[in-house]
Amino acid sequence: MNDAFLKHLEEIRSSTNRALRQLPLSAKPVYLYGPVQYILEGEGKRLRPILVHLSGEAFGANAEDLVNASLAVELLHNFTLVHDDIMDHDDTRHGKPTVHFKWDESTAILAGDGLYAIGQLCISKLSTGQLEAVRAFNQATLMVCEGQAFDKEFEENDAISLDDYFTMIEKKTGWLLGLCAELGAILGRKDLAVREALRAYGLNLGKTFQIQDDLLEIYSDSHQMGKSLGSDVLAGKQTVLTILARDQWKEEWISLNQSLKNKPVAQKLEQLRTFFDRRGIHSRAQEYAREFSRKALATLKVIPDEKRKALELFTDYVLNRKK
Amino acid sequence: MNDAFLKHLEEIRSSTNRALRQLPLSAKPVYLYGPVQYILEGEGKRLRPILVHLSGEAFGANAEDLVNASLAVELLHNFTLVHDDIMDHDDTRHGKPTVHFKWDESTAILAGDGLYAIGQLCISKLSTGQLEAVRAFNQATLMVCEGQAFDKEFEENDAISLDDYFTMIEKKTGWLLGLCAELGAILGRKDLAVREALRAYGLNLGKTFQIQDDLLEIYSDSHQMGKSLGSDVLAGKQTVLTILARDQWKEEWISLNQSLKNKPVAQKLEQLRTFFDRRGIHSRAQEYAREFSRKALATLKVIPDEKRKALELFTDYVLNRKK
Repeated sequence: MNDAFLKHLEEIRSSTNRALRQLPLSAKPVYLYGPVQYILEGEGKRLRPILVHLSGEAFGANAEDLVNASLAVELLHNFTLVHDDIMDHDDTRHGKPTVHFKWDESTAILAGDGLYAIGQLCISKLSTGQLEAVRAFNQATLMVCEGQAFDKEFEENDAISLDDYFTMIEKKTGWLLGLCAELGAILGRKDLAVREALRAYGLNLGKTFQIQDDLLEIYSDSHQMGKSLGSDVLAGKQTVLTILARDQWKEEWISLNQSLKNKPVAQKLEQLRTFFDRRGIHSRAQEYAREFSRKALATLKVIPDEKRKALELFTDYVLNRKK
Repeated sequence: MNDAFLKHLEEIRSSTNRALRQLPLSAKPVYLYGPVQYILEGEGKRLRPILVHLSGEAFGANAEDLVNASLAVELLHNFTLVHDDIMDHDDTRHGKPTVHFKWDESTAILAGDGLYAIGQLCISKLSTGQLEAVRAFNQATLMVCEGQAFDKEFEENDAISLDDYFTMIEKKTGWLLGLCAELGAILGRKDLAVREALRAYGLNLGKTFQIQDDLLEIYSDSHQMGKSLGSDVLAGKQTVLTILARDQWKEEWISLNQSLKNKPVAQKLEQLRTFFDRRGIHSRAQEYAREFSRKALATLKVIPDEKRKALELFTDYVLNRKK
C-alpha cells in the first residue's frame, strides 16, 4: 500500500490521540472523569477521525473544524462501545479491560453518557455548518441505537435473513462512517447531493467494515484484535458467516454447533474455520465485503478525480485490514 | 394558589404530553422504541417543560420553539432517570415499573441513549438561537452527569458535608432547571447577562426542588410520589436530612440507624420522621429550601415586574409541592 498514504493515516491518528488527551476536562468527580480519561487514553484505530479528515481534505475543509469533528465522532464511537460492551458482556476492548469490567456497570453507563455529552460539545464548536453537523451527528446516533437494538433483537433468532443482517449493520456500523464522510462534505460547504453521496459512501464502507469484523473475529488472533475472538458467533449473535452457514448448510451447521458444546474456545474456532473454509462460506463473505466496497467507491464519483485518491485508498485499507 | 396559574400549568402539561406522544418515531426496532414509547406515555410532572414555557413566555419566545425546547428537556430528563434508576436499583418511577425492571438493563441503557438522541434532534429544530441552545443543552447534560457521579461517589461516605451536598444537587438537579430557564431567555433572544441570571434562577430552584424531594421521600406517601419511599436514605445516599442528622446528632444518629436494621420499611420511616422532627432537622431542611427559593426569586429581577409573576408563582409552587 501507498507509503505516503499510510504515513498520512498515522499523522491523523497521532494528532487525534493528542487532541483526545488534551480535551479540557475537570479532574472531579473522579467517578465520571476517571473512566472517561481511561477511554480517551485507549488505543483505538481512530478510523472515524481518519475518515472525517480524508473526506474534509477532499473538500478543502478548515483544519480546526476537522479536529473538532474528529473528536466528536471518536467520542460518539467510544460512548457506543462502552455501552455495547455492557450489553454484550465483553470484558476486553482495545487490549484493555472494558469499563464495566474494570469498575462496574453504573460507572460504565455514566462514563458512556459523559463521553456522548463531551462529543456533543465538540461538534457544537465548529466554525462552519454547525447546525447541519449537529443534526447529522444526532440522526446518526439514533440510527446507531436502532442498529444496536436490531443486533440485540436478532440474538439467537434463526429466522434472521442476510437482508435483515445488512439492514442491521448498515445502521449499527454504517451510519457512523456515513456521518464521518458526510461531515467532511458539510465542513467543505458542499450541497445536499454531495453530502448524501458521501453518506452513502460511509453506509457501504460500514458494511464492508462489519463483514471484515465478522471475519477477523474468527480468522484473526486475539492479541492483534485486542478483544476476545469468536465472541459474537459464540454468543449467538448474527454474523455474515453464521447466516450463510445456516441458510445453505442448515443441518451440518446445527450438528457442528452441537458437537462444539463444552469444547475449549480455541478448538471451537478451529472447527468453525474449517467449516467456513470447506463450505465456501469464508470466500462468499469476502465477496460481499468486496461488493460493498465497490458500491462505496462508485458513490465517490461526485468528487473530482484528482481529489478522490485518498478516499479510494482508504476504501481498500478498510477492505484489507488485518485488525 | 392562583387558579389561572394552575390552569396554565395544566395546559402546558397536557400539550407537552400530547407532543411527546406525537413524536414521529419508527415502530421498529421494538427493542428500542417499545421502551421509549413506554417512557413517553409515563406520567411525569412535566415541571421542566413548564419552566421552559414560563421563562420563554416572559421573553416573548415563539410558541413552536417552546414546544421543541420542552420536548428536548423532557427527553433529556427521562434519559437521565432511566439510567439513574439502573444505577440506583430503583424499581418504580411515576407509579410504573422502571425500564430495567420491566425489561432488562441492556434495554434500559439503550432506551436512555435513544431518548437523549431524540432530545438532541428536538433541540436542533429550533428557529431561534439554535447554537446557543444546543451548547447550553449539552453543557447542562455534562453537569447532570457530574452531579450523578458525585451522588454515586458520596454514597455511604460519612465525611460528606452540607456544602458537598449542595454542590452535588446543584449539578444533578439544578443544571437541568437552569437549562430550562435559560432556554426561555435564549428563545426570547435575550443577551448573556439575562441568560445567566435565568440559569442562576434554575440552579437555585433546583436546590429547593431537591431538598423538597429529600423531605417528600420521608414525609410523603408512596402512592402520591409514584416511587418507593425512603430509598435514598435507606440506600446510604446523601440527603439534606441525613447530613444534618450526622453533623449535629452524630451518636444518636448512629444508634438510631443500628436500631433500625432489619425492621420493616414502614417502621423505619416512622422512626426516622420522629427523629428528624424532634431534633429540629425537618424544620432546618425546610428553611434551606426556602432560602434557595429566595435566592432564586432575587435573580428574577432582570425581568420587568409585569412579566415576572408566573415565574414567581412557579417558585412557590416548587417550594410547596406535595409530590
